[in-house]
Amino acid sequence: MPDPGDKVKLVAKQETVEGILMPSSDANVVLLKLDNGYNVGFEKKEITKMEVLLKKNEKKVQERKVIQDENLPIISILHTGGTIASKVDYRTGGVVASFSPAELVEMFPELQTIANIDSELISQMWSDDLRFAHFSLIAKKIEEHVKKGTKGIIIGMGTDNLAVAAAALSFIVEASPVPIIFVGAQRSSDRGSSDAAMNLVCAAEFITKTDFGGVAICMHETASDETCSILPAAKTYKLHSSRRDAFKPINTDPLARINFKTKKIEFIQKEYPRKSAKLILRPNMEEKVGLLKIHVNMFPEQFEFFADKKYKGLVIEGTGLGHTPGQTPNPEAALHKKIYPAIKKLIDSGCIVVMATQCLFGGVNMNVYDKGRDLLHLGVIPGKDMLANTALVKLSWLLGNYSKEEAKKMVGENLRGEINERLMFVDEFIKE
Amino acid sequence: MPDPGDKVKLVAKQETVEGILMPSSDANVVLLKLDNGYNVGFEKKEITKMEVLLKKNEKKVQERKVIQDENLPIISILHTGGTIASKVDYRTGGVVASFSPAELVEMFPELQTIANIDSELISQMWSDDLRFAHFSLIAKKIEEHVKKGTKGIIIGMGTDNLAVAAAALSFIVEASPVPIIFVGAQRSSDRGSSDAAMNLVCAAEFITKTDFGGVAICMHETASDETCSILPAAKTYKLHSSRRDAFKPINTDPLARINFKTKKIEFIQKEYPRKSAKLILRPNMEEKVGLLKIHVNMFPEQFEFFADKKYKGLVIEGTGLGHTPGQTPNPEAALHKKIYPAIKKLIDSGCIVVMATQCLFGGVNMNVYDKGRDLLHLGVIPGKDMLANTALVKLSWLLGNYSKEEAKKMVGENLRGEINERLMFVDEFIKE
Repeated sequence: MPDPGDKVKLVAKQETVEGILMPSSDANVVLLKLDNGYNVGFEKKEITKMEVLLKKNEKKVQERKVIQDENLPIISILHTGGTIASKVDYRTGGVVASFSPAELVEMFPELQTIANIDSELISQMWSDDLRFAHFSLIAKKIEEHVKKGTKGIIIGMGTDNLAVAAAALSFIVEASPVPIIFVGAQRSSDRGSSDAAMNLVCAAEFITKTDFGGVAICMHETASDETCSILPAAKTYKLHSSRRDAFKPINTDPLARINFKTKKIEFIQKEYPRKSAKLILRPNMEEKVGLLKIHVNMFPEQFEFFADKKYKGLVIEGTGLGHTPGQTPNPEAALHKKIYPAIKKLIDSGCIVVMATQCLFGGVNMNVYDKGRDLLHLGVIPGKDMLANTALVKLSWLLGNYSKEEAKKMVGENLRGEINERLMFVDEFIKE
Repeated sequence: MPDPGDKVKLVAKQETVEGILMPSSDANVVLLKLDNGYNVGFEKKEITKMEVLLKKNEKKVQERKVIQDENLPIISILHTGGTIASKVDYRTGGVVASFSPAELVEMFPELQTIANIDSELISQMWSDDLRFAHFSLIAKKIEEHVKKGTKGIIIGMGTDNLAVAAAALSFIVEASPVPIIFVGAQRSSDRGSSDAAMNLVCAAEFITKTDFGGVAICMHETASDETCSILPAAKTYKLHSSRRDAFKPINTDPLARINFKTKKIEFIQKEYPRKSAKLILRPNMEEKVGLLKIHVNMFPEQFEFFADKKYKGLVIEGTGLGHTPGQTPNPEAALHKKIYPAIKKLIDSGCIVVMATQCLFGGVNMNVYDKGRDLLHLGVIPGKDMLANTALVKLSWLLGNYSKEEAKKMVGENLRGEINERLMFVDEFIKE
């Protein structure tokens, strides 16, 4: 029996038709995607013959190195999966991650006028499936490519967790002799509106023409194809589920802007990490670190869970300036009285609890309202204006590489631009 | 012994000082806030005498009704707590919710030129402590005031969960003869930069001068004091932790704009609920409905929790177009293989699981990638472009008032403007 995804030929009512077998919700209907893109259904009883022309997944992934000009620097493209190297799979009608890095280079010939591309397929996964362990793995690959003499590294990744991965790597990489740029695409490469080529080319331009030596993200700045932004790794959020200009800096500006046509690079921030003499990595990540978003009508057991499961770190994505339910005198909210004790129990169990805000913009300031002061008193550490996801990977990284006491101290300090000291210290919005 | 917050007089080193006793982190130091606002510390051993001049919380909250012009309509202000009726408590240095509604009216005399104010203190709580039950309680109070002949209702509330409460009430109130406007303040009323007065006055203007008959939010449109926005109850997010223009419509426009100086009201959306002949309420809410935000490095037990605790509804705030970890072939992510089974077990247990996106802007589209299709196959219901918090209160409301089958069907339908059909059906960002 042919499987969905197989290319098949069938005969129905004396007519012969070829196409990709699609999953069908009706057991009596066979659905084919024709070469012209249309789906056609055939009643099973009408089909007199069906044969498989090509089994699904028979195409082999190729690995190769593309070197064409000895005068150009080497850029390494480390590919982990996602839309940046995806196309619509006409076999199933959906988007699949199926290009090898070499195919990628062939698809974007402009890349080869900027650099010699060395490419490596690290993994083939959606970024949703990233675990902390993958950030350590990516760091190891960065180290290998730096040793081989690369002048810059592009990490291709799915966009869903791209900003989170970039934040994690910005902590892992304490210093680097080469820029490390995360690049994704919101539309697959075989679509007219794909952003893959422009994002890759802008990243390569930025790598070869500047003294930047840190971790950053390169994505479309606007809905048009004019400019890309170089975004700060630890302060960027995917703020739209599908637009190409979905990635926005939060509580800060882009680091730089690249004009795709003129190739002009303009630094917007004056302070950024420069290339260092050698690579310094702290690649360990602690597994038991989680995130809990606050919402109305919570139950104490949602907090107790993290003590029961022996978490070593928890980021609370609180409301407003950094609040949770708790200690209310209101009879309808009596359950909330057990939330502060649950948070206290969690902290007493040894878990570091950090507060971020679900507002996204602005930061926490736990001295303004009683609630914030109560939580400070319980031992909750303010995450200032850190993004919740950044606080999550920072806490995992701190607990992986430092003592608990050091981690508690460092989590609220600005290490990689993840905290905008100016915003928090001047506190312009609160005090005006 | 005096308690923090008490006004005390003490004698130390022959000197007599009066001030508010502050909480002190050093057991050997007594901290006083002086009338000039400064805090001064005294070593306990230096203090020879200390007496309480005024105990904390001795001031009584007043309740009264203010009617001054029989030609003006009545507006009811239902107060639940929060900054809109707060001021800095100079006893502890923080912000406290301590005004009665009558004091509120006296603070904002302009209100009395627009309407006769009938006020009621429903509760004195931070909005963080709201539970679903409070939404039903507010509905009951709305009903009482409509019966008394009010022409419009202003609900004063803390801003942290104001948009969530407005969304809940927009579902509960199926039709209304009067507008119901949620108003908050990001700065307390005794600050020069307070937004309380302008937000209240604009809401009162909007109530008395338009045919609007639904639930909405009235807050500052920009950082200046020029205009307020009337925002759609089920599609608004508090997008900044402290700015006065923190409330933004997501995937839609404001309903209307009010110029504070000229009092000109301009409708931006042409379709909005008009006043109806009578009030129709469906006030029940189901308690066991939760929200889970997806992040990197999740454990299957985070999903199993909701089956173990017998939740009847869960909103997953997924990544991108509506994704979770799960079913990965990557060896480092083997734990994720157990996440799809955990989601399936939850759905099989009878829980309705709805997907929203943590990107905020844009919606979920679970047909684009394998991950989305896998989750659809498990029985996850796409929340389209509904905000996660809106999906949370909608699901609680549906399960409180309809059968499970009806709830499953209705959760993805646009009932109160919470889903922007145009965006999702034209799907402009995906298909461009």
